[in-house]
Amino acid sequence: MVKVMVIHGPNLNLLGIREPHVYGSLTLDQVNERVQQQAQELGMEVRIVQSNHEGELVEAVHQCHSWADAIIINPASYTHYSVALRDAIAAVRLPTIEVHLTNIYAREAFRHRSVTGQACLGVVSGFGAESYRLALRAAKHAVEESRG
Amino acid sequence: MVKVMVIHGPNLNLLGIREPHVYGSLTLDQVNERVQQQAQELGMEVRIVQSNHEGELVEAVHQCHSWADAIIINPASYTHYSVALRDAIAAVRLPTIEVHLTNIYAREAFRHRSVTGQACLGVVSGFGAESYRLALRAAKHAVEESRG
Amino acid sequence: MVKVMVIHGPNLNLLGIREPHVYGSLTLDQVNERVQQQAQELGMEVRIVQSNHEGELVEAVHQCHSWADAIIINPASYTHYSVALRDAIAAVRLPTIEVHLTNIYAREAFRHRSVTGQACLGVVSGFGAESYRLALRAAKHAVEESRG
Amino acid sequence: MVKVMVIHGPNLNLLGIREPHVYGSLTLDQVNERVQQQAQELGMEVRIVQSNHEGELVEAVHQCHSWADAIIINPASYTHYSVALRDAIAAVRLPTIEVHLTNIYAREAFRHRSVTGQACLGVVSGFGAESYRLALRAAKHAVEESRG
Amino acid sequence: MVKVMVIHGPNLNLLGIREPHVYGSLTLDQVNERVQQQAQELGMEVRIVQSNHEGELVEAVHQCHSWADAIIINPASYTHYSVALRDAIAAVRLPTIEVHLTNIYAREAFRHRSVTGQACLGVVSGFGAESYRLALRAAKHAVEESRG
Amino acid sequence: MVKVMVIHGPNLNLLGIREPHVYGSLTLDQVNERVQQQAQELGMEVRIVQSNHEGELVEAVHQCHSWADAIIINPASYTHYSVALRDAIAAVRLPTIEVHLTNIYAREAFRHRSVTGQACLGVVSGFGAESYRLALRAAKHAVEESRG
Amino acid sequence: MVKVMVIHGPNLNLLGIREPHVYGSLTLDQVNERVQQQAQELGMEVRIVQSNHEGELVEAVHQCHSWADAIIINPASYTHYSVALRDAIAAVRLPTIEVHLTNIYAREAFRHRSVTGQACLGVVSGFGAESYRLALRAAKHAVEESRG
Amino acid sequence: MVKVMVIHGPNLNLLGIREPHVYGSLTLDQVNERVQQQAQELGMEVRIVQSNHEGELVEAVHQCHSWADAIIINPASYTHYSVALRDAIAAVRLPTIEVHLTNIYAREAFRHRSVTGQACLGVVSGFGAESYRLALRAAKHAVEESRG
Amino acid sequence: MVKVMVIHGPNLNLLGIREPHVYGSLTLDQVNERVQQQAQELGMEVRIVQSNHEGELVEAVHQCHSWADAIIINPASYTHYSVALRDAIAAVRLPTIEVHLTNIYAREAFRHRSVTGQACLGVVSGFGAESYRLALRAAKHAVEESRG
Amino acid sequence: MVKVMVIHGPNLNLLGIREPHVYGSLTLDQVNERVQQQAQELGMEVRIVQSNHEGELVEAVHQCHSWADAIIINPASYTHYSVALRDAIAAVRLPTIEVHLTNIYAREAFRHRSVTGQACLGVVSGFGAESYRLALRAAKHAVEESRG
Amino acid sequence: MVKVMVIHGPNLNLLGIREPHVYGSLTLDQVNERVQQQAQELGMEVRIVQSNHEGELVEAVHQCHSWADAIIINPASYTHYSVALRDAIAAVRLPTIEVHLTNIYAREAFRHRSVTGQACLGVVSGFGAESYRLALRAAKHAVEESRG
Amino acid sequence: MVKVMVIHGPNLNLLGIREPHVYGSLTLDQVNERVQQQAQELGMEVRIVQSNHEGELVEAVHQCHSWADAIIINPASYTHYSVALRDAIAAVRLPTIEVHLTNIYAREAFRHRSVTGQACLGVVSGFGAESYRLALRAAKHAVEESRG
Repeated sequence: MVKVMVIHGPNLNLLGIREPHVYGSLTLDQVNERVQQQAQELGMEVRIVQSNHEGELVEAVHQCHSWADAIIINPASYTHYSVALRDAIAAVRLPTIEVHLTNIYAREAFRHRSVTGQACLGVVSGFGAESYRLALRAAKHAVEESRG
Repeated sequence: MVKVMVIHGPNLNLLGIREPHVYGSLTLDQVNERVQQQAQELGMEVRIVQSNHEGELVEAVHQCHSWADAIIINPASYTHYSVALRDAIAAVRLPTIEVHLTNIYAREAFRHRSVTGQACLGVVSGFGAESYRLALRAAKHAVEESRG
Repeated sequence: MVKVMVIHGPNLNLLGIREPHVYGSLTLDQVNERVQQQAQELGMEVRIVQSNHEGELVEAVHQCHSWADAIIINPASYTHYSVALRDAIAAVRLPTIEVHLTNIYAREAFRHRSVTGQACLGVVSGFGAESYRLALRAAKHAVEESRG
Repeated sequence: MVKVMVIHGPNLNLLGIREPHVYGSLTLDQVNERVQQQAQELGMEVRIVQSNHEGELVEAVHQCHSWADAIIINPASYTHYSVALRDAIAAVRLPTIEVHLTNIYAREAFRHRSVTGQACLGVVSGFGAESYRLALRAAKHAVEESRG
Repeated sequence: MVKVMVIHGPNLNLLGIREPHVYGSLTLDQVNERVQQQAQELGMEVRIVQSNHEGELVEAVHQCHSWADAIIINPASYTHYSVALRDAIAAVRLPTIEVHLTNIYAREAFRHRSVTGQACLGVVSGFGAESYRLALRAAKHAVEESRG
Repeated sequence: MVKVMVIHGPNLNLLGIREPHVYGSLTLDQVNERVQQQAQELGMEVRIVQSNHEGELVEAVHQCHSWADAIIINPASYTHYSVALRDAIAAVRLPTIEVHLTNIYAREAFRHRSVTGQACLGVVSGFGAESYRLALRAAKHAVEESRG
Repeated sequence: MVKVMVIHGPNLNLLGIREPHVYGSLTLDQVNERVQQQAQELGMEVRIVQSNHEGELVEAVHQCHSWADAIIINPASYTHYSVALRDAIAAVRLPTIEVHLTNIYAREAFRHRSVTGQACLGVVSGFGAESYRLALRAAKHAVEESRG
Repeated sequence: MVKVMVIHGPNLNLLGIREPHVYGSLTLDQVNERVQQQAQELGMEVRIVQSNHEGELVEAVHQCHSWADAIIINPASYTHYSVALRDAIAAVRLPTIEVHLTNIYAREAFRHRSVTGQACLGVVSGFGAESYRLALRAAKHAVEESRG
Repeated sequence: MVKVMVIHGPNLNLLGIREPHVYGSLTLDQVNERVQQQAQELGMEVRIVQSNHEGELVEAVHQCHSWADAIIINPASYTHYSVALRDAIAAVRLPTIEVHLTNIYAREAFRHRSVTGQACLGVVSGFGAESYRLALRAAKHAVEESRG
Repeated sequence: MVKVMVIHGPNLNLLGIREPHVYGSLTLDQVNERVQQQAQELGMEVRIVQSNHEGELVEAVHQCHSWADAIIINPASYTHYSVALRDAIAAVRLPTIEVHLTNIYAREAFRHRSVTGQACLGVVSGFGAESYRLALRAAKHAVEESRG
Repeated sequence: MVKVMVIHGPNLNLLGIREPHVYGSLTLDQVNERVQQQAQELGMEVRIVQSNHEGELVEAVHQCHSWADAIIINPASYTHYSVALRDAIAAVRLPTIEVHLTNIYAREAFRHRSVTGQACLGVVSGFGAESYRLALRAAKHAVEESRG
Repeated sequence: MVKVMVIHGPNLNLLGIREPHVYGSLTLDQVNERVQQQAQELGMEVRIVQSNHEGELVEAVHQCHSWADAIIINPASYTHYSVALRDAIAAVRLPTIEVHLTNIYAREAFRHRSVTGQACLGVVSGFGAESYRLALRAAKHAVEESRG
């Protein structure tokens, strides 16, 4: 069974409340429920964490080392400047998939840059909550492929 | 039934031959076969085109106007400078998903920029041939959602 | 009664101790006392929080959602790079006033940029502790005006 | 009689269909009809070509060498990066007028730059289909003036 | 009858005297005479003003508010940095046409940028005194079109 | 009694007329009336000047030397490039407060920069006409503080 | 026998006609004749192709895969921005020599950059038609050396 | 006796585990043991703290104020963007030595910049765990020198 | 007799009053007196003008056309951005000498750039009022040399 | 007989010893021997000099003035910043050919720039010691052509 | 015994004389004496050289090849632009330690960049003459470690 | 008597020979003769040195320390990048006047920057050999003024 840690970054606890015309109307709980259900359908085990703290996100990545086969992370605002998170991802050496609800290339120029994405296996962005489902499949595929 | 045009950009005809350590060992025909099979499984109809010509890619996007519900495009090298392709995507106003075999954020700095991605619904990058499968699902979801 | 959350950013707990020739000789407690007294004079209710943690500041902004009519924030060093704080301010959609003790345009070039200020209603900078008093008035005015 | 080649660049075949709120509701055929009629009124002979291919546009410019007295070109998306088109214009050494339907200075920053315009006699931008009529007059004037 | 204010910017009073190989040999009086005559032919009323003062140009634009249907402005050197003139043009909200005797894209790089052009309807550049005639037609067309 | 010179920069004479959705619906006369009334309430004496001319604004600053205790200046468009105004402010060495109706950090990127603000005591921006009232208080406070 | 594909890029079909003071007075046919003759003298086999189309140049490079031992390419205008051509050269993994008639370092700044050159073995620029002869020798040497 | 606070930044808790070919094979505990032993040999007292949280690092610096004579800090990823940490170091005004295991000038370009180093006394980088020993000596020397 | 127009730019009317530690303690009248006296000694005729208005400075340059043999100009703050002044200097085609009291290379980086200097014969900067005397000699020499 | 000065820049005395996987295994003596032999075959006379000193290289270029018909120079590290060498080459006005062992476009970005190349006739780079042989031929051709 | 070459760059011969408030009051002779004494204490052999000539410094590095186990170099001003020195260091492949008397990150922005440091093992900066002692220890450690 | 060292930088030994249309037709000997004669007239003592070596120029500046009252230096090409020369000038703390034959602001953009000028008292540029005479007077004035 493929084990995946899903890590939500800052302000995502406001999902559904915060600018629904931009980020969609689902709350984070609803998104997480869906993720759990989809994981079950895919025969995967998922743990989910959210934090607004860069340090906690770094440590959430560290903790994957001892449990997870892969990481799905939406670094949200930290995407664009957190070298700490980037270095954490590079350090644990697990297949990591960066997820964005919105297409970062279709927003303000400063959001086009992904510091964290440089240490990831791949990026899925722009599909709202569906981005997570696609990332689950990507994670599963990556882990199974590396297992041969 | 959701109809999707899959558009492969320049040099992708060399897939499997060209730098397999970077792009994987599947040939374009093998990738296309898989895409067709996956589309069938998802109950989707797919047409596939490849071109090394910016102008032909622009016209392939135009032709989606009269047939496709969504576009999956791997603009390859043109990703980084083709305003023509970007404007074509913006013009046809179909949900368009940009696909990359490799994670463009994990390569040379000039590849981090996506000119075409600015006109797309979303981007999937870094999962090799699997990127296309994820894009098929994303396309299906986007079309079904817009149909309500 | 207008309710305002006053949020002090990193290193402000050292106020009065830290470089008094730059930031003035009042301690943070003394500044807060003044703010409370001025708020009372203006018929406003104020809560005050200080943190050196970006994540805690993000959450302090979130918590305004359920209590405050307006936010006064001195993001201090985070002004110049915290997209997380900027996105938090944009998310809660309350009139937010950025405050600086010093005039950031009159300091090193990297301090001229305000990432957080881009999500605020306005900015008051350069008047030492007096900046907060001006911000209180600005907050009161903004809230009353929006109430019509 | 002044002979002018009118060259339309990429995506202009979608005119009237593509984002009419930006580019106006006339189709390319309608624009061309008007151009022909206006040319007749001005006693000019006009040939018109459209292509989405950078290479074909380069060659359309080359062919002016043996027939046209002047060139009117709307390089559209290629305006901003086609050194090939710029060098073609410089090579044929005919008075060339760059035309834009929209005012490129009033759009996204990357559209302010005109690579092709650096090799042209002049630029007319921002007047929709009327831009072509003005360019016809400009072309006529330039040719007649050079004839003395 | 369409009423147009023609505004000439700094150093244009030296026209015909100043670098005739660059700007042509007509004096400003001769250019103005032609503009008046062409306006008459087009059934337009024209007033003309020249100033070397940024502030006077700003005020000339303001005064259009109460009289003109459109503005034709050659901001000359101010094109490249006058935010004041740009904001004036944006404020009066009349169709404004920027004119240049020379093609600014074919000159030094710092002249490629047009700050004022960002607030204009369109730009005509590179045709010497003929640029004004084209601008007259463009102005007439824009006003008549907006009148429906 | 604290004496303050209030200096309004270019295009502010159009206030209330020019883009009221951006700058508010009060005319400059109404703003000035309020400023006079508020000054009276604060026991301050105020003189007010408006000019669209950079040179006149420079000289208005110079004249403060012999009369005013402090300056309140809204350099408007000149904020972003007038080194002359900046040097004038630095030269008279009076406490100077820069005022903006809108939050310049929340507008186009080129408006984030304040050349003039680098020579000021502080900046108040984003509160419409209320910005002036806050600046009056700031001025009073600064003068009284420097008097000991 | 060493087999070399010589690929001429855009506008080179105008050679001898186009700006002879810059590019020399030989036509492309004359250059090609010389190249053939020199190849014969060096005991090499040469095929020559010219295209103004980026896509055709990409495909010309692809076709070298099955025939040529080395490539000599003058990407002309595409030198400075064609990632597609660069990726094609990188893909076929043949020793590739970039040729320029003029010394690109001695021309406009934007011509100093070579995107395609980054994937080549070496560059020869500045010697007019003689550049091709030198490239032939370089190609021969590179192939013979790699053969041991 | 010279008292030094040693502060380890983010991801250093993974030392020895994380990319040993880059950072060496000693764990953080082993490094700390050595530091303690070396301090003892040098007659110094050392306290050691590690955190992945920018805010905690800021506060660790603050706490040096009441105990330490000098600070040795390895800000790791925060080196390159933490203005908060930089301002904390500047605020406590103790001799501070920045330490890096690797030579930051010999890594990716974005790591060449040290935001925190601008507030430090000096920098020691590139010697692995030995960097700390050198920093201990540097700290001892700096404190003794300032004591006269 | 060599006739020279001396043009002083903005804020120079404050000379001697404004920051004497930077610009020296002589007033503008005293500087002008010296200039007149030195001119007399050198057998030159001098007229002097000062203005804070960019437009007036432009016109002062224009008026040299009919009287002066050379221009000495201290554009002060306008040095760094006045394209209008630069174009005026280029237009009158008289030998023009730019003068600065201070060495602009030894001040803030934005003062290193001279827009006006690009149209001048030469620059003398850094010698206080003595700069004008040197410029007088330079002007005399340039005029006499051009007279043969 | 064509006389050519071959000038080797800094660190080239270490050739064959220094990083042979980058620069090849021939020593400078061996390269020079080959150059002499090839020159003899081509009926050319060659003198060779090597220096690590920018000033000596400048003077070596100067000395060509009185003896050489052409210069072949490998400025090595100085390529990227020596304006002195560039100006020396421009001053002697002999056909000068810049040579590099490696293709500078295929190395670190800072090596793509050639300051010295801007004053040369042409550049040959990327062919190891063979670059010199090609340069000999280029030099011979250039000299013979200029002799008519 | 570990043998180290200590190389002092330009202007260091003025040490103690030149700006003692910046660089300290020890003369270069005094610094060298200390270095010799410290080396003796550490059981190391040291040779010392100083030069103001980039070429001599390059050659001093070359000569280390045949004698030294490690290099300590203070490239002083050359730190920021000498690619020649950088390439020399890279060529000799000895552990090299860059030393600065002052902390280059705490000085003007152009001094933050170290071109030479990119080829070094590590950097010690900011401790005055003590920087050399630390570098001696670092050199000893590096050599002993590489000896196993 | 005022003693001045005149230091000529690289390539100036070619004066009169090198591009006379740019630098004038006087040889360096002729210039020096004039300088000597002018110095005599001004009652000054002058020593003159020329070098193409950055290190020798650095040392020439050092030697001024023990003899000269002021320095006149034409750093020529080194103006734009020699931090070593700049630091030497700053170190000797004598009034130093930078001289250029041509106006560096009127040449290529890379020549507008003066690294050395940042450490000088003033700059005189653009007057050919006359620049030196002006610099002699400036030097005399500066020394006499500092003597009181």
